[in-house]
Amino acid sequence: MTPRSSQETGVLANVRLAGGAAADIVMRDSLIAEIATAPTLETDGATRIEGEGMLVLPGLVDGHMHLDKALAGLPWMPHPAGPTRLSRIETEKSLRGDLPPVQERAANLARQCVAHGTTAIRSHVDIDPDNELTHFHALMEVREMLAGILDLQIVAFPQSGVLRAPGTSGLLEAALTEGADVLGGLDPIAIDNDLDGQLDTLFDIAERCDTGIDIHLHDAGADGLAEINALCERTRACGLAGRVTVSHGFCLGSAAPDEFERTAEAMAAVGVSLATHGGAASPLPPVKALRERGVEVFAGNDNVRDTWSPFGNGDMLERAMLLAWRSGFRTDEDLEVALECASAAGARVLGLEGYGLSVGNRADLFTVDAETPGEAVAQRPRRGVVVKGGRVVAREGEFADASGT
Amino acid sequence: MTPRSSQETGVLANVRLAGGAAADIVMRDSLIAEIATAPTLETDGATRIEGEGMLVLPGLVDGHMHLDKALAGLPWMPHPAGPTRLSRIETEKSLRGDLPPVQERAANLARQCVAHGTTAIRSHVDIDPDNELTHFHALMEVREMLAGILDLQIVAFPQSGVLRAPGTSGLLEAALTEGADVLGGLDPIAIDNDLDGQLDTLFDIAERCDTGIDIHLHDAGADGLAEINALCERTRACGLAGRVTVSHGFCLGSAAPDEFERTAEAMAAVGVSLATHGGAASPLPPVKALRERGVEVFAGNDNVRDTWSPFGNGDMLERAMLLAWRSGFRTDEDLEVALECASAAGARVLGLEGYGLSVGNRADLFTVDAETPGEAVAQRPRRGVVVKGGRVVAREGEFADASGT
Repeated sequence: MTPRSSQETGVLANVRLAGGAAADIVMRDSLIAEIATAPTLETDGATRIEGEGMLVLPGLVDGHMHLDKALAGLPWMPHPAGPTRLSRIETEKSLRGDLPPVQERAANLARQCVAHGTTAIRSHVDIDPDNELTHFHALMEVREMLAGILDLQIVAFPQSGVLRAPGTSGLLEAALTEGADVLGGLDPIAIDNDLDGQLDTLFDIAERCDTGIDIHLHDAGADGLAEINALCERTRACGLAGRVTVSHGFCLGSAAPDEFERTAEAMAAVGVSLATHGGAASPLPPVKALRERGVEVFAGNDNVRDTWSPFGNGDMLERAMLLAWRSGFRTDEDLEVALECASAAGARVLGLEGYGLSVGNRADLFTVDAETPGEAVAQRPRRGVVVKGGRVVAREGEFADASGT
Repeated sequence: MTPRSSQETGVLANVRLAGGAAADIVMRDSLIAEIATAPTLETDGATRIEGEGMLVLPGLVDGHMHLDKALAGLPWMPHPAGPTRLSRIETEKSLRGDLPPVQERAANLARQCVAHGTTAIRSHVDIDPDNELTHFHALMEVREMLAGILDLQIVAFPQSGVLRAPGTSGLLEAALTEGADVLGGLDPIAIDNDLDGQLDTLFDIAERCDTGIDIHLHDAGADGLAEINALCERTRACGLAGRVTVSHGFCLGSAAPDEFERTAEAMAAVGVSLATHGGAASPLPPVKALRERGVEVFAGNDNVRDTWSPFGNGDMLERAMLLAWRSGFRTDEDLEVALECASAAGARVLGLEGYGLSVGNRADLFTVDAETPGEAVAQRPRRGVVVKGGRVVAREGEFADASGT
């Protein structure tokens, strides 16, 4: 029921575009060849995928995950850690030996994400002196296993700190040499107690490896703002404009107006983007205010039912809903902002080429039983098909392998 | 498949209790007659309801809804109002004439709630000089229509204000005389610009009608705290201890520590409870801190896909998840706090007699495909059956009428 090779032609027939028009989408060589809104269409020999009149949207982009921490596919495990971030770091390490292999759990979660309509993920992966590169190698396997089904970008992430865990910097650099896409970091002040020390180390590695940086910044108040501003200054100095992300940046959600203006301006000036999971119990950075000042804001599910969080199911429409709900978005126009954070904005930050529902772009898309993109976000209705490179990879919320079964 | 009269005996067989034990639940005369954890059970002639090994929980209690505003069952309608509360009030009024009858929309949403496991709802209903008692009468019809399926408590709610909309106070009193259960109110400072004026009017009516009060307080900062403290003082003076609720109380989520202590203490002293929908874009009152100080906190879905909000589906497990997510709850113990807000705490405030999963209590319960109550909250898995007074009222997430079809 779906093309078996990328040379075949497929038609996703009987769908509706965001503006409401009925359409058939012709796909060839993994790309969108035609978006036909006329009632008839010549597609002799093309494989027909029935769209059931659903809304079609470009594939969702999950810009911040931790696939290696997943418990997907396992029975429920009550959250075992204490209330602090350090407790979660240490508790997780103590559990590792008792869990199934990382690649199995990570692939389970990745498939679950695909089933909801996600076609690209940026996942952080824990690298520390205990596990060394084992989690990273597991995610490299998952990336290979899901090639053609999911674009997987890997961030080499020092979950135990950089200076706090001697040996980590060499491991991060090794991962980047072996194929990690982006360099990670973590709260230089709270975790390493050395803002300049961690940032110096990270930017040294980033320059040597010619890679971008995506750094977790949970630190609140003045510490967080100092971290972001120092990050922006180094981004400029090292010529990394447009390649650096702040993940979370909760301090932006509680900053005084003048501090917010100054910091948002610094981010916009050097193209430092912000990844958010919607804030949960922390202050949420103001999405629209950041976008208006030129900061790219994109969304990710972050921890999905894992050793860090009991919540989440991998659905980026649900994440867009949470982001919208916390942002006070109500109109369809605002809900579409949340959807953009969960799709096109992430695609821009991840550098996905040929993203979007236009002729000549990659045929990465999904259908959802909604009238408008706003309804898709607010109500997260059932999904029809998920198509990656012109091939069906999920149906009715269930992962199907790339041969369409 | 389900008892046709309340005299029949039914067995909800093959379920698991919150502690993990397998059980059969025998139901007779609308009540729980036995909770049998032994492997065999004599129930000759009893109607068997298969529990599929799922977790059984007491019926969910939705402590704050607006059934009369619902768009349930209608095609998607993008949110039409401007960004202010007053715009939502006025926009809603302008739309009323174009919508299907209130009782139809309200019943649709109520059935949707039941399908998710809710067995009791407190719904506010708009009363103002324009619609007079028409919405109230519609909800009285819905209550009658769903008798035996759902406990529906009605709050006579002055959505357009009390003093701001002359004639409202008489209408509120008329509704209470005709069968409304609770008197509502709304932001005395922001809406009526007269704290004492609105509260004097409300407490006069409450004393005359011998009813409790549930007042919407969105006002932030000092205004909100002044409103709550004035409410507590009048609650004491009028002998209404234990019968007054603050809905939302966002000001408690951003109060300075000493103001919070003083206000929480005032609430606890006169049994003023707090209803919350999880805060959305507003500061969330600290659930555990309030409970520790003796304030009863309960949850409600508030606006569910209506003229006020595009979000929500009526599922109180999803509401408990949102409350937990925003509260930073992660452990099963904390997730159970959120579940209690969505069940037993609401039952206490609504005064539901015989609530809870114990012999002699009402057979109001539902099954969910979860290992623990914590998983039920965090993951909101599929529902099996919903049982009200011993009879199946929903199966597999779909409403079934009281005869079990």
